[in-house]
Amino acid sequence: MDDVALAYDDGPLPVVAQDADSGEVLMLAYADREAVERTRDTGLAHYHSRSRNALWQKGEESGHVQRVREVRVDCDGDALLYLVDQEVGACHTGYRSCFHRTIDGEVVGERVFDPDDVYE
Amino acid sequence: MDDVALAYDDGPLPVVAQDADSGEVLMLAYADREAVERTRDTGLAHYHSRSRNALWQKGEESGHVQRVREVRVDCDGDALLYLVDQEVGACHTGYRSCFHRTIDGEVVGERVFDPDDVYE
Repeated sequence: MDDVALAYDDGPLPVVAQDADSGEVLMLAYADREAVERTRDTGLAHYHSRSRNALWQKGEESGHVQRVREVRVDCDGDALLYLVDQEVGACHTGYRSCFHRTIDGEVVGERVFDPDDVYE
Repeated sequence: MDDVALAYDDGPLPVVAQDADSGEVLMLAYADREAVERTRDTGLAHYHSRSRNALWQKGEESGHVQRVREVRVDCDGDALLYLVDQEVGACHTGYRSCFHRTIDGEVVGERVFDPDDVYE
């Protein structure tokens, strides 16, 4: 089937990474055409850093890679959903999900590693 | 508890709307401070349209509102997660989720209404 047309021309697209088994939303990042192609070619989640204007692979430093089972697109072709198997944890602060706090500041997520052990 | 600081100054923040029961990711939209405040005040999901530069309430035309059980924020304070009870369907094309296609164009989502019956 043909690939869905994506609105890359407006800049990198937001990508939701979701745990393919539990359904937990793990993080939100951005991807351009190159990042999506690398993701599909390798089966590992790649993103585009807007601040560094660079391609990055999730887990390249921590080892906490995301194996991508499926890439979905939204109705307008301007957002993506990666369904992933997440190694250990998605958040650089040590939590399983980056969305581990309510807007009131209450911690509701699970801490799964100590960043001091993982990042130099 | 204090509210988490959010990076509104860089423009509206991406918001992931997720079905609070099933875990299905329903849509991605944007919210500024006003939209988040209205969401918290009313319990109904509000967003900010970047193309119209205007506040909107999900379901204001279709009736397919999102009742928000919880608002979460990510580690960097630059993305939000609304955990919602979605009336009927989130997508204006009639699907439960806007992410109803794979990047290959295969339809994997559930169609739950006919847009011709809902939108003028």
